[in-house]
Formats: sequence, C-alpha cells, structure tokens
Amino acid sequence: MVFLKGVRHVMTPASYSDRHIGPDSKETAEMLGSVGYPTLAALIDAAVPEDIRTTTLALGPALTEEEALRKLRSYAQQNVVLQSFYGQGYFDTITPPVIRRNVVEDPGWYTAYTPYQPEISQGRLEALLNFQTMVQELTGLPIANASLLDEATAVAEAVGLMARTNKKGNRVILDRRLHPQVVAVTTERARTLGLEVEIADVSSGVVGESLIGVVLAYPGTEGDIVDVRGAIEDIHSRGGLAAIATDLLALQLLESPGTLGADIAVGSSQRFGVPLFFGGPHAAFMAVTDKLKRQLAGRIVGVSKDAEGRPAYRLALQTREQHIRRERATSNICTAQALLAVCAAMYAIWHGPAGLRAIAERVHQYASDFAQAVGDKVVHENFFDTVTVECDAPAIVAAAAEAGYLVRSLGDSKVSVSFGEGATREDVEKLAQLFGATATESEARPLPLPRTTETLTHPIFSSVHSETQMLRYLRELKDKDLALDRTMIPLGSCTMKLNPTTGMEPITWPEFANVHPYAPDSQTAGWRALLDEMEEWLAEITGYAKVSVQPNAGSQGELAGLLAIRRYHQANGEHQRDIILIPQSAHGTNAASATLAKLRVVVVATAPDGSIDLGDLDAKLEKHADNIAGIMITYPSTHGVFEDTVREVCQKVHAVGGQVYIDGANLNALTGIARPGEFGGDVSHLNLHKTFSIPHGGGGPGVGPVAVAEHLVPFLPTDANAVDLTKETPINIGVPTSGARYGSAGVVPIAWAYVAMMGAEGLERASATAVLNANYLAKELSDSFPVLYTGKNDLVGHECIFDLRGLEHDTGVSATDVAKRLVDYGFHAPTLSFPVAGTLMVEPTESEDKAELDRFIAAMRSIRAEIEEIAQGSITFEESVLHHAPFTAESVSDDEWGYAFSRRQAAYPVTSLRQGVKYFPPVRRIDEAFGDRHFVCSCPPPEAFNIDD
Amino acid sequence: MVFLKGVRHVMTPASYSDRHIGPDSKETAEMLGSVGYPTLAALIDAAVPEDIRTTTLALGPALTEEEALRKLRSYAQQNVVLQSFYGQGYFDTITPPVIRRNVVEDPGWYTAYTPYQPEISQGRLEALLNFQTMVQELTGLPIANASLLDEATAVAEAVGLMARTNKKGNRVILDRRLHPQVVAVTTERARTLGLEVEIADVSSGVVGESLIGVVLAYPGTEGDIVDVRGAIEDIHSRGGLAAIATDLLALQLLESPGTLGADIAVGSSQRFGVPLFFGGPHAAFMAVTDKLKRQLAGRIVGVSKDAEGRPAYRLALQTREQHIRRERATSNICTAQALLAVCAAMYAIWHGPAGLRAIAERVHQYASDFAQAVGDKVVHENFFDTVTVECDAPAIVAAAAEAGYLVRSLGDSKVSVSFGEGATREDVEKLAQLFGATATESEARPLPLPRTTETLTHPIFSSVHSETQMLRYLRELKDKDLALDRTMIPLGSCTMKLNPTTGMEPITWPEFANVHPYAPDSQTAGWRALLDEMEEWLAEITGYAKVSVQPNAGSQGELAGLLAIRRYHQANGEHQRDIILIPQSAHGTNAASATLAKLRVVVVATAPDGSIDLGDLDAKLEKHADNIAGIMITYPSTHGVFEDTVREVCQKVHAVGGQVYIDGANLNALTGIARPGEFGGDVSHLNLHKTFSIPHGGGGPGVGPVAVAEHLVPFLPTDANAVDLTKETPINIGVPTSGARYGSAGVVPIAWAYVAMMGAEGLERASATAVLNANYLAKELSDSFPVLYTGKNDLVGHECIFDLRGLEHDTGVSATDVAKRLVDYGFHAPTLSFPVAGTLMVEPTESEDKAELDRFIAAMRSIRAEIEEIAQGSITFEESVLHHAPFTAESVSDDEWGYAFSRRQAAYPVTSLRQGVKYFPPVRRIDEAFGDRHFVCSCPPPEAFNIDD
Repeated sequence: MVFLKGVRHVMTPASYSDRHIGPDSKETAEMLGSVGYPTLAALIDAAVPEDIRTTTLALGPALTEEEALRKLRSYAQQNVVLQSFYGQGYFDTITPPVIRRNVVEDPGWYTAYTPYQPEISQGRLEALLNFQTMVQELTGLPIANASLLDEATAVAEAVGLMARTNKKGNRVILDRRLHPQVVAVTTERARTLGLEVEIADVSSGVVGESLIGVVLAYPGTEGDIVDVRGAIEDIHSRGGLAAIATDLLALQLLESPGTLGADIAVGSSQRFGVPLFFGGPHAAFMAVTDKLKRQLAGRIVGVSKDAEGRPAYRLALQTREQHIRRERATSNICTAQALLAVCAAMYAIWHGPAGLRAIAERVHQYASDFAQAVGDKVVHENFFDTVTVECDAPAIVAAAAEAGYLVRSLGDSKVSVSFGEGATREDVEKLAQLFGATATESEARPLPLPRTTETLTHPIFSSVHSETQMLRYLRELKDKDLALDRTMIPLGSCTMKLNPTTGMEPITWPEFANVHPYAPDSQTAGWRALLDEMEEWLAEITGYAKVSVQPNAGSQGELAGLLAIRRYHQANGEHQRDIILIPQSAHGTNAASATLAKLRVVVVATAPDGSIDLGDLDAKLEKHADNIAGIMITYPSTHGVFEDTVREVCQKVHAVGGQVYIDGANLNALTGIARPGEFGGDVSHLNLHKTFSIPHGGGGPGVGPVAVAEHLVPFLPTDANAVDLTKETPINIGVPTSGARYGSAGVVPIAWAYVAMMGAEGLERASATAVLNANYLAKELSDSFPVLYTGKNDLVGHECIFDLRGLEHDTGVSATDVAKRLVDYGFHAPTLSFPVAGTLMVEPTESEDKAELDRFIAAMRSIRAEIEEIAQGSITFEESVLHHAPFTAESVSDDEWGYAFSRRQAAYPVTSLRQGVKYFPPVRRIDEAFGDRHFVCSCPPPEAFNIDD
Repeated sequence: MVFLKGVRHVMTPASYSDRHIGPDSKETAEMLGSVGYPTLAALIDAAVPEDIRTTTLALGPALTEEEALRKLRSYAQQNVVLQSFYGQGYFDTITPPVIRRNVVEDPGWYTAYTPYQPEISQGRLEALLNFQTMVQELTGLPIANASLLDEATAVAEAVGLMARTNKKGNRVILDRRLHPQVVAVTTERARTLGLEVEIADVSSGVVGESLIGVVLAYPGTEGDIVDVRGAIEDIHSRGGLAAIATDLLALQLLESPGTLGADIAVGSSQRFGVPLFFGGPHAAFMAVTDKLKRQLAGRIVGVSKDAEGRPAYRLALQTREQHIRRERATSNICTAQALLAVCAAMYAIWHGPAGLRAIAERVHQYASDFAQAVGDKVVHENFFDTVTVECDAPAIVAAAAEAGYLVRSLGDSKVSVSFGEGATREDVEKLAQLFGATATESEARPLPLPRTTETLTHPIFSSVHSETQMLRYLRELKDKDLALDRTMIPLGSCTMKLNPTTGMEPITWPEFANVHPYAPDSQTAGWRALLDEMEEWLAEITGYAKVSVQPNAGSQGELAGLLAIRRYHQANGEHQRDIILIPQSAHGTNAASATLAKLRVVVVATAPDGSIDLGDLDAKLEKHADNIAGIMITYPSTHGVFEDTVREVCQKVHAVGGQVYIDGANLNALTGIARPGEFGGDVSHLNLHKTFSIPHGGGGPGVGPVAVAEHLVPFLPTDANAVDLTKETPINIGVPTSGARYGSAGVVPIAWAYVAMMGAEGLERASATAVLNANYLAKELSDSFPVLYTGKNDLVGHECIFDLRGLEHDTGVSATDVAKRLVDYGFHAPTLSFPVAGTLMVEPTESEDKAELDRFIAAMRSIRAEIEEIAQGSITFEESVLHHAPFTAESVSDDEWGYAFSRRQAAYPVTSLRQGVKYFPPVRRIDEAFGDRHFVCSCPPPEAFNIDD
C-alpha cells in the first residue's frame, strides 16, 4: 500500500486527496479505534480477501488542483472550435448564462441524487415536469418521460416499445432519412432482439406485412421535410405503430407529430440550450399516446398529493422500472439526463413560446436565404434549418473550415449546412460566398405541414422571462431539494461522493463544450487525448486490457459488456451459449440488460450469509454447461460484502467456458486494492458517476464505460458513424451503443480530474476510507439496528445493510418510515429496500468526514429511541412521529397541533439541528399510490396550488 | 426617446434589455395605468423637468448576451498572461476552486447587500468575523476591521488615524521601503490634510520632533526585511504611533507586528486566494491596539446577542460611521471589500495554520534557492519571498517575458523576483538560468525576527479542510442570508438591481483575473481597451468630457472629484476657495469626503418640500462668495425627487465662481434621460455597483469612477506609479486615489457588459422603468404609509420615502420594527432612517417585475394592518408581532408559545408565503447596544454556541 510506506504525510496544500477524503488523520485514527484496527492497511487486510489484492497502480504522480486545471486547459486549447453548422442531430445553440451558472455550474443542482425520495426532490421534480410538459406540448402527444440518454438510444427504445406492444410481427422499418448514427444504433439493438430491420425510403408510403412499426424522420438528416401523413396511414392500416424522430426547434414551425397521427415521438432536446459537449450528455425525449403510457421506458414524473392533500410530485409508475421488475423488465434504462433535461426545460421557459418561435423563424429565414443564394444546387425543396447542396464536398468543407465554419459532407458530392441559434446574417453571407453565391434577404421558404397547433400554452412557459425571475426561480427550486452540498447522501450502491469543483469547472469551457461530436480529428486533438488517457487510466485501475467510455449510462455499459460476451461466443461458433447466471441479490438492471442482449437469465441462489450459494452455482453450471454464456456478479456484492469466494466463482464459470461479467457498481471499494480484470473478470462496466466522482445531476448524466480483457477487445463499442448500414455487422466486431463515438464526453473531464488529482495513493486511500467509514457506521449503529450481512472478520465492505424487518414486525415502523423521518434530521435517506426488502443500505463514501458520520449516527440512534417508545407501548405507531414524518416548516408552526408528540420533537429532535440552518421539506409525506391511480404527468394548472385559507 | 420611436418592439431573444428590465410590456401598461400615465414617455415627461432632458445617447447597438461574451472573450485574448513574479503588493496566488465557484461565482454571496440588517446577514457576518480574527491573529493586534479598499488607501487611512489620535504634531514619516504606490497615495492624501510628510530610511531609527507617526515596511518593497524594533522604540519615545505595512503570508514566518510593538498593522489580503484582477478588487486590512479601536476606520463586525440571548453578529460601533456622524466623520470610508475579505478568510480556513505555513515555507524556500544560485548579485541579505538582484534590468525583464515570466524592474540596474504560491521548482531553475545561474536545493535563508507566536489558533481555522466540508460551510452561511437571488432588496439610494450573469462570468476568466496591475502595456491591451471603452461610455452617459475608473469605491470617487475641484481653484490661484455647500439631506459621505479634501462644509437648508432652500442657498452664496469652492448635490435628490430647480442651483453656484459636484448615487434615474454634465455639473462620481449593475458583494467591492468636464480633465486621478516621490505634485495635475491605475479593474467587465447589452434604448428604458416602479409603489402604498416628498405632478423619482413618524407617535411602532417585520415576509428591509430619521426609503429598481412589487405591497399593507391593531387598541405595542419580529423557524415551532398573536401570524402572515420556500432568519432580533457595550470583534469560542436543552 502506497500510503503505508511511511506515516501519513503532513498535509500540504499540494495533496488533493486530503481535500477529497473527508476524515483527516486524527479522525481516521479515532474511527479505526472504534472498529478495532490499528491502521487502514490492517483494516483492509482484514476485510479484503488476500487472493484478490493487487499491487500499486501505475498512474502518474497525483496533480494538484492547479496542475490539473493547467493540464485540462492545455487539452482544451488543443481543440479547434469552429462555429458549428454541422447538424446531424447536434446543433449550435446558446446556453443562457443565467441557466449555465445557476444549474449546470451550481452544486445545489448537480450534486443532487435521483428523485426517488420525492419529499426532498420537489424542485427538480418540478423542473422535470416542466420538461415533460414542454415535450408533450411540442410533440402533441399526451405522455412524455423525464428524458432518455441520446437520440440514437431513444429511437432504439422506441423500437423496443413497438416490439413489446405489438406482438403480431417482427418487422421494423427505419426511414433512411434518419440520422445515420440513429439508424446504426437502433438497427444493432433491434437485430439483437431478433427483429427484422429494413432501412427504406418511406416518403411515398409503406408496404409489406407483419409490421410492428416504422420510425419516420421529420425532418430528415439532409434537412428535407416530407409529408409523413400518408406513411402514417399506411403504417396504421398495416397494424404498425408510427414513431417520428423529430426536432423540437423545427416543431415550433411544423405541425406536431401527435396532430399528424404519430403514436410515438422521439428526439434530442440538445439544441434547447445544452452545449454540444462533443456528443453528450444531452437529454433525449420520448412522448407517446395515452394508450402506450405503461410501455414508456425511463422515468416519468407524475403529480400526486401529500399527507395534507396538497399537490406534490414524484416519479410515477415506478413499478415499471427494472429495479423492481427485474428480469421481467424490457428496457434497462435506469437513469435519465436529469440535469440536461432541466436545462432544456429552463431554456424553453426562458424564451417562452414567442421567443422560441422567433428563434425558429430566424433559423429558417437564414436557411432560406442561404438556399435562395445557392439556388439550383440545393438538393431538397423543403427544409427547416438544414440545406443540402451538391458540390465538391472536400473542397467546400476545407474552405468552410478556413472561414471558421464546420459543415457536414455527405459523401464527396454533397454538403449540408445546418443553421443554429447562434447563426447570424453575416454567417449566411459568408457561407453563401463559399459556394460562389451572394446571399440577400429573401422570403422564408414555405414549409410543408406548417404548425397549426399552439405551443407551450402552460403558464409556466410565459411567467419567467426576466433574468431576475429566472435566477429566483432556479434558487427556489434548488432550495426545495436536499443535495450533497448540504448533507451526506448515504445511498448504498450509489456512491454519492464529492464532485470536485476542479473537474466541474472545465466542462463549460467553450473549448470543450462547443465541439461537435463529428468534427474531424484535426479539430479534436485535445478531447481525444483526454478521453484516451481516461480510458487508459480506467484500464489500469480495473486491470483490463482496454476500456471504452462510449456507453452513456451504466445500463448502456452493461449492455455493451454483455453484447461483447454474446458476440465473442458467437464469433467462436458457440451460438448456443445464451444463458447468463445472475445471483439473486443482483441489481435489476443486470437482468434487464441481459434480456436486451438476448441472453436468458438463470438465477443463482444466495446462501444464508448473503454470498453466492456455491452449491447452487455448481448445479446450475452443470445443468447448463454448454449453454453458459457467463455470469454477472457484483463485487463487493450488492450486500456490501467482500465475498472471499470470488476467485473461485470466476474459476468455476471459466471452467465451463463461460465469461465473467463483474458489475463495477461497487468499484469504489476496490480502487488500488483489487482489480476485477485481475481476479477473474472478463468484462466490467464502470460508473463514472459513482466511483469517479461525476455528479449524479439529480438523476443523470451518468457515464458507464465498459472494460474488457484482451480477448474481448474486438467487441468493444464501435463508432456509429463508421457502421456500414448496407449490411449486417460482422459478428467478430462490436456494435455502437450510443450516437457519439465517446458518448457523454462532455462530463468525462470530471472523472479525469478526479483520477489525475488522486493518483494511485489517493485512490487506494479513498477506497480504504470508504471501507472504514462503512465499518464505523456499522459498528456504531449495530446496537440500534442489526447489520444484515458481514464478510470476513465480521466486516462489511464499503456499505452495509441495516435490517429493519424485526422492528417493523414488532412496532409497525417500516424502513420507509425511517427514511422519511431522516428528512426531519436533515438527511437524505439511505437506499430503501434494495437489495433486500425491509432494509436500509448505507454507503457513506470516503468523502464524508467523521463529524458528518457522527451526525448521522446520532440521528439514527434518536430514531431508534423513537421506535423504542412504540415498542415500549408509550405511543402507538399511528400516533408516532415516525408515522407522520416528514414535517414542513408550516406544519410545525401551525396554530393547531393535534399530534401526540411535541412540535420540538417533530422539528428539532436533536440539539445539533438548532445550531445550523435546518432543512424543511416543502411537502409532507407523499401519497405514491394516489398518483398512480390518478395519473397526471404534465404541469398542473396554477389553481391547483391555491391555498384555501 | 429611442424606445418611443415606435411601439415597443416584440421581445426577441436578441434583446437583453428585456431580460434585465423586470416588467414586461403588459405589466408596464398595468403599472402605468395605476399611476395614471398612458406611456412611459408620458410619465418621464411628467416627472423630469423639461430643461434637463437630453437626447439619445451615442452608444453602439446593444449586444446580445452571446455577442457581449464574444467581445469580452476577444478582449481577454488580447491580454498576455505571464506567470507573475512581479510582487510590489500583488502576488501570484491560487484561488481554491471550491471558493471561486461557491463564493465569487455564487449569486447567493455576490448579490447580497451590506450587512446593515444583521438578522438576515449572519452568514456573511460570520465570514467577515473570520476575516477579522485571521487578521488579528496574524498581526498580533486585538482589533481588526472587516477590510479596507486596497493597501495604498489603507496606509493612507492609517495616517489619518494617527493624525486624529495624535494631535501633538503634524509630521508623518513614511518608510522609503514601502511600495511606491503606497507612498504616492498616502503622501498626497496626507498633504491634502495639511500633514508634513517625510519619506525616509527608518531602518536605523527615527529622529526629529512633532512626530505623529511612522509607517514602516515589513518586508520592504524590494523584499528586504529589517528589524523594526529599534525604530518602533524611537517612534514611541517621540510620542508617535508606529504602523507596520505588512504581508499576511510573510507573517506565517515572521514575528507579528503586535509582538514587535506596533500600534497599527495594514496591508492587503490579496495573496490569500484573491486573483490579481489587474489591480483589484482586493481586501486590504487594518488592525490596531485596543486603545485605538474607536478610531479605526471602516466596518467592524462585532458579537452581540439576539432576543433569545444567543450569540449573533452585527456591525459594531456604527456610530463612528460617516453616514451617522456626517461632517464630524474623519474618514469617508463607507464600504469594504466584503466579497474579497470572505474569500481571503475562507482561503485561510481552507489551508489552516499548517497549510499556510507550508505555503510560506515553500515560497521562502524557493526564494532562498533562487538567491543562493544568483549569489553575489543579490541586493538584500534578508528576505521572505522577494529577491532583488543587480543586473541589466531591461535585458532580464525581456528574457523573462520570453520565458513566460513577469518580473519587476527597479530602475535600469535592478530586478526583483517575487515568489508566489504558484511557483514551482522548475520556475526557480528557469529564473536562475535567466541570470546565468543554476538553482539547486539549498538551506532556506534564515529569517530575522522569526515568528514565535502561534497563528490561527481559533478552531474555525482547523475545522473545515475537506472540499465537502468547505462546500457545505459556504452553503450554510449563504443560506443564512437573504440576497437578491431570493428577494427584492428595496434599498433606497443603493440601487440593488440585477447583476447580469453575462458580466459576472468573465471576471474569473484567467485572461482577465491573472493579470498583474503593473504588467507592461504590451501585455494588457485587452484590459486597457475594455477599460477605455468603459470610460468613454460613462462619459457619454453622464455628459462629461472624461472619466476615470480608478477610484475603487464611491467614497474614493467623491474624494477624487472634490480634489479635482480644490486643485482647479488652487491652480487658478484661488486658494481661498475652500467652502463646499452641502444640502441638509446629503449622504454623510459627502461631508466626510469634503473634510478629507480639506474643504470646509457649509450646510444649505432644505425647504419644507424637501428640495434645496433656494433662499438659504442665495444667502450662503452671498455670505461666502469668494470662498465658495462649490456645491455638492445629489440628483435626483436623496429625497428621491427630481427637483426642478437643479439648473438654477447650478447657475447660481457658477455665478459666484463655484464648481458643481453632482453625486452620481442616483444616476439610475437618469441614464438616457438627463446628463449631469449637461445640466450643470462640473464633476460627478458614479457607482458602478449601483447604476451599472456590479454586485454589492455583501458590502463591497464597489467601483466609483469620477467624471469631469473639460476644464477639470487635468485633475483626474493619475497613476500612482508615475508620481515623482522626490517632490510635491504640481497643483495643476491630479493625484492618484488608489494603488492601481485602473483601481478595481477586475469587476469592470460587469458594468461593461451591462452597458454593451442595454444600449441607449435599454438604459433609457431602465431609468424610466425604475421611475415607474417607484411611482407604482408610492401610489399603491400611499394609503398605508404617507410618502414624504414628491416633485412635479406629485411624482417621485426612482425611489420614495415612506414616513412612519406619525404612526410611531401614535402606536410606538418604529421604522425599525417595520424593517424587522419585513424579514418575516421574506423581504430585506428598505433603507432605514436615511435621509430622514423615522422613515423607510424604498428603491425598487427597474429589474423588479410587477409581481415582486405586488408581493412587497401586500407585505407592507399587511404590516400596516398589524399596526392598525395597535392603533385600534386590540393589542399593545409590547405584545404585538411587530415588537417581537423577526421569528426563527425554531421560535415558531417551540413547544411554548407565550405570545398574544398566533404562530401563523408570526410565520405566515400572508398566504403567498405558504406557496414557496419561506426564508427564516437564523436569529431573532439582535440587541445592537449590548454588542457595543460588550465589544467583541473576533470569533467567539465554540462553547458560546452551546445550546442548553
């Protein structure tokens, strides 16, 4: 262990790891004393099996914050940022500074967790509901989700939705006018599921039978707009579903997909103020008809009511989610692009219906003027913002670059020019000159299917237009929520750790933010050097041969990893290997991803101690022998334990020819201590938003790199734009998992900074401290709440499960009641009822200091005492503070007080709450079931919030 | 009027003025309806005297936010940022990213007002108390203020303090080892006051009589450290006071000034994490012995207690301040550099005593290694961070620049190299090479007077070291305070308007932030172009010939303006013109500045309608005729009224040979409507932090440009570094007012962006809307509270005074009670008892929309109803909610409720409070007097906050 070579060094300003890791040496010693080990090294020796320990990571010397910023700046400067007229799904847009600063750059927004605990998430839930309402109004469809990962995967999800809704056929048609990356990703995904995919010109109609659906482009990738109504009629008459891939800015001027008869609309909201980010993260969207609502993948924010009957938001229809439905799930989406969806919604509010229309009209006007100037060479008569021109493409692209413009070449003889929000008349003139033409102001080109329906009619889109209003609206929403900038978020399996400011700062630098994902390599040297270095570091940390950061969420990394296994077997001629073993305790996404990879799931039992039941494993391996594709395990396990049989498990699976997939969700317990690629893994996905300190953003972005051993390297994700769409992808190479080559590149600098600044020593000490913090909590709280599983030497890993089932049985107090009550103590709840119902799983991470852990311990002990009152019969459960938690400021200052407990107990149960600024949730406990019974997923009218005095 | 040429244009995304100005066209029309005018133009015609109206401003077309950012970026790129080893009071430092993002870039911190209302300012008061405690501990002196403007003016203030404390002499000695800009500013200021200034070598002692004090340099400008103990003994034995100008980083290793016997310590805290900012803003400091505490200029945060007896902070000893003492004030300082003081204090907390010492040791080590390498040519044996070397200075400076370093030349034969926090060993090696030497690691040079006393012993400096802790600490402090990001701050005379994010963003760009103020012109082209353009715009807006942005606060601009008048008369041989007329209603700073300019104040009476009493003016002019230097007026007047006699007043003063000073405090009522330089002013100072949207920063920074007519141009502030210190400055030129040529250049981009984006039309409409908003409030509230003064057509200007004296007489409810009660409604109080005791002065500004004004109106009416209950005898004043306001969340949820009013009335008196996030102050009403009786101005021990349950 590096950090044990001597005594821990005196803290100097140079060491960032001392800033990241919460406990200082004194606190570390105190906690080690509590758990009974003399040093961190001794604790790790006792907790982690000897046979998986690794040697020091070969990373460069840790950088200081200043050095990291300097290096990042030098990478940034290696990018050449041209003004983007490239299009192809990624458009030039202007992020309003007030939104950039007060959302994207504000820890109150970006450090928030997914809004599973709705009482402390009303702010971002409202923002996401705004997003949904915006999508609904613009697409003309009544149900929208709170975002998907990118346009390409959103279209793939749309096809998945068609397939599970429409069981009568297996044929899908993709409009050849869709963006190529969309076609590539969707085709591969659909073919994996066994669907027959056709890429066809559907502008003159659709023919053929056993059709489950068609995805239409509106507008097309070359900018052309065709009247899709005939195609939709054909599709419907053949029993298929009609999906439209569209553009939210174009929909300001074009009739809505819903009005045209579409069943589904998908697309990206990127151009609503979200930077290009070299490909992502951006919030994609999907909207559907009411009939399809229960098939809609991803999160949906819905309206319900709280215990006092007031409107309150929460995630709706959660029983659809894979984390609850497990192997019956049909989509593995378990995250969204919340932060980016918030930006897009705020952008819509900022501009309002008239402002957005004005932007769309300007864009269309410039495109018209450009086309008018270029004249005959324009390929398509009808367009919104993108004009395709016949020309000597290489020459034009080069001349444009010389003039500072990035345009798109379509083969050698066509170029398209996409006008975005930032385009000016001067740009139009200069671009026309490149084609030897002179632009003048002309009539805007008439649009087919002009919009007749209103847009953004909800008052929210017309009420926040001044910068002061926006600033205060964003502050108010932020203040409603409890994020990592105010409290520990002890979420087991989610690793809610510090997000370093040094890593956050660069993501909005123009030299990173304004690079188009398809810009030529000559313009992206800085980006690629950074991303390549990141991939190399991740390979070193995990012990694998190679890593791809392309998957833009953990679920996507998982799918990519499983596809690598599946294709590897197939390339070896072992097509029959389609069974994947998954332990009972696995995260639901594992099974869902397996389904998407067309693998059959066989569950391996859990032994009484929570570990994998080796006997059952042997039996399953024997039974399925030649059909075993592999096993998916999580390490440390989802029970938070370092199982000491992990090498043995890997060996057993390898022995029958299977591959080992090690879910990297819990990698934060391992960095610098053990490497999955070394102790038996063939493939892993990582979560940069967990172990590598990218913020959760209130429910996304995530980044889920996939890491593989040498023999699987050929199967890593490939570039969607390099896919030959004219034939099936050979089985001996990988397939793309996202529309952009590096996925959500835009946030990777955060993880880069984390690794660069922590270095080998810091990463190792971070994991060791994460394990110490968890064991300290387990130890200090075990008298109050039993710890469900422990490993070697009765130690837990980096998280632990408190079992509340006994207490619930005795008193009626559920884990949910404890979770809600923790809000009154100023805490975000731990993970609730995962992986075991009736439990709370706590993961403190290394960045929490002892004082914060002690505050949590005090809260949990106080809650235990409140439960004890019920156990002792002093109060009934129904009368107890636990049953009624949480409390708003208004409720505890109400003139009436009909409760059996005191106001002070409700609001200030421990003294420390009186010494700081106490957080009060804006609503009482939310009635989850009511919302699903009365499903509403768009903004309520203002009157709904009227308070009847 | 530009905006009246046609109907108001439809809002497009291109117009920033529609973002800045709160009311949209619909709201504007509604408010115009209320005040009874059909259009904004008609209102302005009715409110503003015809004879001062101006024509359209000649400014370029308004830029969009994107265009402004692009232009700012191009300015930034014109600067050449070398690594700074220049020193001379401005050092290379590293701003911790967590502090940059969560203080300097956080609206919660930067939009706050000066903490005059302590209940809603506990967060920044705590931060400023940390600053004071830091300065006290490091200087070894018990009393420190909450910052001064820059080191040069701080030393000038120290001399002023000596002069008013020590009346026995008039001779001041300035150590010639002080930084030249410090000597220049201080000498001019002291000579103006009639003091005799000597610039001398005091290292071997002090001689001579009638000494009031000496300012010693420790270390000196060339880096040399001398033992000042002998000099201090000499000074004291001659009855003088000893001030030490020092460096907080050097004091980590050098004995504290207090221990050495100094009475006063001054300096800059810039190198504690505050960027160079091309000269400012930075927080200077002053610490004094207990004996001198009541003479200490500037703000002092002190500890008092709230109504429940808990510790609470507030500004102490406020009766010293010029806004209360008026013409008896002896310093005109009325602001601080609060935001920068917060940064410096947080930097100290971030690094802690060990970390700061480590930085100091590293800096000293590098300086030692460099000196060791350079050898014989080193001029001074003893140094901390700055090494002066004999050499061919021009050649070395050029070679250094070539290598990327900025070093300082001292004449042609010496260069000094100052090592800052960012210096590395590689830098040491490269710098040595420039001198033909090879640097190796050596022993650190022994220091004279090594520190024996401890530093930063208070626990706060050792308790917040991880980034998570700092993030949460900053959030908690921010949340305690009410700033413009949550509510209107309707402060009359302070113009608390929106601070545009577009202007805020560039100030922390490295290309602006990291430029040394004394870098050669070849490296600062971007900065100078921006600043020159700003000065030109301000001249155009005010109608003057020329503007200087050098004054780094309104008070400094005022002094600069008065000095211009004084020197103008002197240059004309009219030395006897030393009487300045000041209306009774003037801001106290006016009189204080006049005193500093050695002008005698004669007060002109106010007529019953609040305007200047023309009869009294005539009488005073006649009586003092040949002695009249000029008059200082504010327009619109401090009563918030457009007096229609302003041209007449100016003419009368001109007629006797006097000059007219028009205080620009209320310029926000005039932009695009009238120009002071046109309607009679000879000189004005402006407040960029008022009219031009630089944030108040919780009590600074401010920027106070001075604007003059053609005949006063020669008297504008000059460059402190260009002053010939060997002789008295000729009377026919100006004198420097701050240490840096462009003062607080660092924040000027904010004002630049404001003007660039508003354009002529936007500025005009902003002022007109400010007048509309004030008149709307006056109209809607006049039934509740009488408006004290109105002008033409019964209209007010951009602010109005509500007179509460009658109500107080009848009910006992004071303006203070109303101000405190407004906190419970979520509002910052208006200006309290200025300019008339017993009143509230309200200035809504143009950036508040009608909804926010209506919320304020509802609150004030509700308060009026609460007062009425007392008037009607339903409740006594002592029992009333007004007497007990404000209420903490804890107080309204206490189990005991002994009040005569309900909890609901206390906490949620109007329904709208229940619909958002209610702000609760962290303390009850603060006992101001207790704090002054028990004066404590350093952080209390943690036990003070113990809550006895």
